[in-house]
Amino acid sequence: MNEINKIFEPKAIAVIGATQKTDKVGYVILRNLIDGRYAGQLYPVNPKYDEILGLKCYKTVLDIKKRVDCALIAVPAPAVPLVVKECGLKGVKGVVILSGGFEEVGRKDLADEIKKYAKEYNLAVIGPNCLGIYNPYNHVDSIFFPMYKLGRPRAGDISFITQSGAVGSVMLDLAAKYNIGVSKFISYGNGTVIDECDLLEFLGKDKKTKTIILYIEGIKKGRKFLKMINKVNKKKPIVVLKAGKGEQGKKAAVSHTGNLAGNYLAYKAAFRQAKVVEAQDVDELFNLMRIFSQPLATGKRVGVITNGGGLGVLTTDAIEKEGLELAEFDEKMIEELKKAIPPYVNARNPLDMAADATVESYEKTINLYLNNDKIDMVVVSVLFQTPTLDERLINVIGKAVEQRKKPIIVVTIGGEYTEVYRKIMESKEITTFTSPAAAIKTLRKFVEYSFYIRCKINKLCSFY
Amino acid sequence: MNEINKIFEPKAIAVIGATQKTDKVGYVILRNLIDGRYAGQLYPVNPKYDEILGLKCYKTVLDIKKRVDCALIAVPAPAVPLVVKECGLKGVKGVVILSGGFEEVGRKDLADEIKKYAKEYNLAVIGPNCLGIYNPYNHVDSIFFPMYKLGRPRAGDISFITQSGAVGSVMLDLAAKYNIGVSKFISYGNGTVIDECDLLEFLGKDKKTKTIILYIEGIKKGRKFLKMINKVNKKKPIVVLKAGKGEQGKKAAVSHTGNLAGNYLAYKAAFRQAKVVEAQDVDELFNLMRIFSQPLATGKRVGVITNGGGLGVLTTDAIEKEGLELAEFDEKMIEELKKAIPPYVNARNPLDMAADATVESYEKTINLYLNNDKIDMVVVSVLFQTPTLDERLINVIGKAVEQRKKPIIVVTIGGEYTEVYRKIMESKEITTFTSPAAAIKTLRKFVEYSFYIRCKINKLCSFY
Repeated sequence: MNEINKIFEPKAIAVIGATQKTDKVGYVILRNLIDGRYAGQLYPVNPKYDEILGLKCYKTVLDIKKRVDCALIAVPAPAVPLVVKECGLKGVKGVVILSGGFEEVGRKDLADEIKKYAKEYNLAVIGPNCLGIYNPYNHVDSIFFPMYKLGRPRAGDISFITQSGAVGSVMLDLAAKYNIGVSKFISYGNGTVIDECDLLEFLGKDKKTKTIILYIEGIKKGRKFLKMINKVNKKKPIVVLKAGKGEQGKKAAVSHTGNLAGNYLAYKAAFRQAKVVEAQDVDELFNLMRIFSQPLATGKRVGVITNGGGLGVLTTDAIEKEGLELAEFDEKMIEELKKAIPPYVNARNPLDMAADATVESYEKTINLYLNNDKIDMVVVSVLFQTPTLDERLINVIGKAVEQRKKPIIVVTIGGEYTEVYRKIMESKEITTFTSPAAAIKTLRKFVEYSFYIRCKINKLCSFY
Repeated sequence: MNEINKIFEPKAIAVIGATQKTDKVGYVILRNLIDGRYAGQLYPVNPKYDEILGLKCYKTVLDIKKRVDCALIAVPAPAVPLVVKECGLKGVKGVVILSGGFEEVGRKDLADEIKKYAKEYNLAVIGPNCLGIYNPYNHVDSIFFPMYKLGRPRAGDISFITQSGAVGSVMLDLAAKYNIGVSKFISYGNGTVIDECDLLEFLGKDKKTKTIILYIEGIKKGRKFLKMINKVNKKKPIVVLKAGKGEQGKKAAVSHTGNLAGNYLAYKAAFRQAKVVEAQDVDELFNLMRIFSQPLATGKRVGVITNGGGLGVLTTDAIEKEGLELAEFDEKMIEELKKAIPPYVNARNPLDMAADATVESYEKTINLYLNNDKIDMVVVSVLFQTPTLDERLINVIGKAVEQRKKPIIVVTIGGEYTEVYRKIMESKEITTFTSPAAAIKTLRKFVEYSFYIRCKINKLCSFY
């Protein structure tokens, strides 16, 4: 475990296979470390160059006189084992092997050599065949996509373990776009040495990680994995996307990382038993990843406020479909609502304030919903495009979210203007959605997890 | 029918309830007509003003000496019937009533008066309680949301009939964002006079409309509606989103437009019988709305090309889940593929060219897929964030789409950089998706519709 941490907190990094060719992995990662303002020592390694990007270049890692904590390796597969051995000899603590060409193309022999050296030198090894790691706290970054193409998110508390670099990186890119904070990103590829179980254990103990996002295709140790997700998910929510479900999907998975995807039903059973939250695709993974910034739900009664009637109807449909409940209003609540809304608005749930709703009417009604103990969570569905609304509404919602009384989410759909508002909201940790169905589905899964955790506290055990 | 067209092709428009108050409907629509460069005559009507936005203002529509084809009405509900009557007396052909406060709040009496005058003066009436209409061909626009808040899409061939202004307008806003062309937009609210059946008939005959997007909650004439969707869907695809499905949703629907939402199972049966394409939410509606620019599918065998292994696995899972098929490659195809890709790439479907795929390898393999008659449609899944790709890939895909040999769609997910590429692609009529599951679900529904239409041509009747 200490070794894994060395990869994330290195004082000195060697980039082995660094190059001056700008579209190569060995160039892009060195460039990203410099542009990203990584503050530690950087040592490019390549026998062909004396200097790369203004840094002295070394023939081998053994030629570096100072200490090296971590090596990022981007040399062709056949050359990797020797490089790993040299890292061991040098006393490097951990390596990240970005190169592909191992188990996934039938070169188990090369993978076995890496394993051997990892054991011999007590080396932490991430990869091969991966994007490696990203730590926004210190800008350690082995993702070989240029920064202008793939955004790097700010520091926060969501961590990623992903067998697919593509799936992981698009999640990072989305997090950067919406200014969502990330703790640690680990694309571990073939998982030859360090696998998902090791990484789950590591992140389970990582103080900066509050939510774990996991993308897997095939795992190596079923029983250990089940034990691990059971253990970690009790402390921190694990959201998992399992790919390679069908027969064809399994074959594609083997060709991807060399791992057997196994029987999906067994995975599904394991996820259910451990009560980890399962996503069915990338968009759902993105939705679920943000919802855990909310306080746990105490029940399943939803209050809905909108200025778009159709959105209120669609939200209501989704609530019924997902097995949540539309909160019921008593006489007192109806009386209070009537004071807050124009006379032509029906004081009911969903509350449809129509297209002339103002920031003030949203503020009053949101507060009534927040303080009503028969409403467990609030869905604020906003058509920002109307003439009477403006960005003050974001502050109103932000203040409500800050109180952390109950989960509050926003559904808002639209073009450029609304997208700007959405970005502002996400940066203020207001969870937004662009479809009522997706919002409520996410909320339902969040409520299920809330019940699971609260069960241990106050016996509120069953969702249904 | 001719009367409905008058609303969309007016030479002169009266804005009744025009005002100088900038957050009011009567100001915003006048402003939008001016800013949108509507080229016909514009007559503001309001007894309180002599002039609004530089235009002479009239006390009543009867005071306008010249011909008026269409009136946009934004006065309080109780004043609407008299205004409608005056429009009839004036010889106006059609009116759009934006004001709310009729059936949806129990004022059936006011609605009945409108009906009476509509009949008496042979007036086409859209609304009340709606956003009205938008025609990008001549900038007729009654949508009372400011243009900087809600984008207006360019002219094209997708038309909208929506009972909810909110749902309809967000679709327009999304269309504007991605430069997707629209023919006619009709938010018809309570549907007091002109209802969904009249509008379906109208758009069925409209030469500029190729795809019809329909959002409904409750309809008035079930049998007529079933007959109409059967008839129109044979000529042009109808994509429908039905809201108000559950018990609570139905109540919300009545409170929204005063229409009974009825039994969803009956709707579902009607949609299946007529083979209209059903969407379950706004995001699915948006996805389905764009897929019909593709040539009809001739089968259900999908070819997948990607540079993101995990995306390939997820796409394969979705293909199996949705009942489509992963196309099989024969020896000849494998040999040809091998010439187009580096030796370490497996020549199989899904084709995972890994993170160093180039524009050239995409070009070669896309062409092989296009010309392989055992592939009915192509999914190009692109991680644009890699160092080796650039915008030339958009031209490669664009050329493939232009050939119209088979459906080709793109899956691409990411932040700001990828979103720019996505906008360029959509503006070139390359259909894009941000989730493999959503892409394949949309494709499956498209294939079902394709089979339905082709059934009449070549007996290829059954999807399953």
